Amino acid sequence: MKVLIVYAHESPASFNAAAKDAAVAALTAQGCTVEVSDLYAMKFKAAATTEDITGGVKDAENFCYAKEIKLASEEGRLADDIKKEQEKLKEADLVIFQFPMYWSSVPAIMKGWMDRVLGFAYAQEKRYSEGIFKDKKAMLSFTTDCPESVYSDTGINGDINVTLWPLQNGILNYCGFQVFAPQIFWDPATGSPESRSSMLEGWRRRLQNLCVEASVYFAPLDYFDKEKGFLLKPEVKEKYASKECGLTVGIHMGKPLPANSQTKAGV
Amino acid sequence: MKVLIVYAHESPASFNAAAKDAAVAALTAQGCTVEVSDLYAMKFKAAATTEDITGGVKDAENFCYAKEIKLASEEGRLADDIKKEQEKLKEADLVIFQFPMYWSSVPAIMKGWMDRVLGFAYAQEKRYSEGIFKDKKAMLSFTTDCPESVYSDTGINGDINVTLWPLQNGILNYCGFQVFAPQIFWDPATGSPESRSSMLEGWRRRLQNLCVEASVYFAPLDYFDKEKGFLLKPEVKEKYASKECGLTVGIHMGKPLPANSQTKAGV
Repeated sequence: MKVLIVYAHESPASFNAAAKDAAVAALTAQGCTVEVSDLYAMKFKAAATTEDITGGVKDAENFCYAKEIKLASEEGRLADDIKKEQEKLKEADLVIFQFPMYWSSVPAIMKGWMDRVLGFAYAQEKRYSEGIFKDKKAMLSFTTDCPESVYSDTGINGDINVTLWPLQNGILNYCGFQVFAPQIFWDPATGSPESRSSMLEGWRRRLQNLCVEASVYFAPLDYFDKEKGFLLKPEVKEKYASKECGLTVGIHMGKPLPANSQTKAGV
Repeated sequence: MKVLIVYAHESPASFNAAAKDAAVAALTAQGCTVEVSDLYAMKFKAAATTEDITGGVKDAENFCYAKEIKLASEEGRLADDIKKEQEKLKEADLVIFQFPMYWSSVPAIMKGWMDRVLGFAYAQEKRYSEGIFKDKKAMLSFTTDCPESVYSDTGINGDINVTLWPLQNGILNYCGFQVFAPQIFWDPATGSPESRSSMLEGWRRRLQNLCVEASVYFAPLDYFDKEKGFLLKPEVKEKYASKECGLTVGIHMGKPLPANSQTKAGV
């Protein structure tokens, strides 16, 4: 298995660095080939700009990044740093995003990687369960600065499953990735050195069997009617009408959200 | 009223530019002072790095951006570009974020503005309804590349209210901002010139009465028990026990989400 770790922390002494190093060691020991994109060390350009397209944009007057980047990708006219990341991505069977959560999402430098590198994977015809990375797996691995209770459905920050939806569904699932449950390190900075060691040990253990894990559930593309605004097909709605919970966090059908569906596999 | 528009589109001929220009004109005509931070034109640095702190970081060994940026802010040791934006922010009564939605969120360059400029507003003691910007208002104004149905609770992208939660609750509400309902321009690129004009006309009309609009509902800070992991207080839980829906999108208490609560005021 080939693994790409997209890593966003500036300090080699951080818990995020330790989590990244643990993954490199554990996966390499299993015979995986591991590549790390260390975004800060690479001084990765975060802003999606016209400079990402070589040889001139097609419509400078009304520049649309999504359209231009797709076209440039087909024509091999992307900036070198994007091309290099895309090569790593094409090779990878699994992509792990390792980051500290900043403002309920990934740090800007990592969002920049997503905006710029994944641009060619953004396609209405080939998305979600038909997305171009449907044979690949991806997962988020991140640290928080607060305990788990704060991110519950009665906690002040609200349900972490809701917070993760735009990242896991809107980005990873959109591209077709099978999404492993996130690895969440709850507030390592506040804990003791022992609790941090124990978190890393848990992570190492998980990595040993990661490749056989089930993935998080998302609704398949054929549940939606292409001709009718990509809404759930009547037969799917009917099938789920008597169920207590919605299909997923976002496609909740006005029902309670399925519990832990973004944080546990196959729920 | 002083207004800051944080704007993220590279092309002056884009619909986002037109929406920004319409806001500048409509608000200026009402006697507001309007300042625009044109992030691409400013080549705004997106990545949160040690360079954002002048005079050396306190803990280089184990660098924590959130802690360092707060400390540097108190000591006046922030990079000039952050200081300038913070000055604009302190002056503003209303902040409008104008952007094209990229991957279910703001473009990286705007996330960078949030990560770097709002850093000093990230404080456990002063957050949400007690956040440092509690006397200010903020709103998202953005374009999508798909129609509204796609972002419904039976649509393929899922409920837009879920997608907006991390941005509106996790960032704006966290800082204390009263959040106006978002201005969503559904797929302007696909529509006719007339439909785009009509969208802009609607935006101009809304801007005329914006300052008297009610804001989106969020749970107040005193609903949560500081001593018990910032969970909802028992009396609040009891009060809402018989209600059909949860309190907000994230604090849903295992119930159906309140409909449109992130897209309509006071729901």
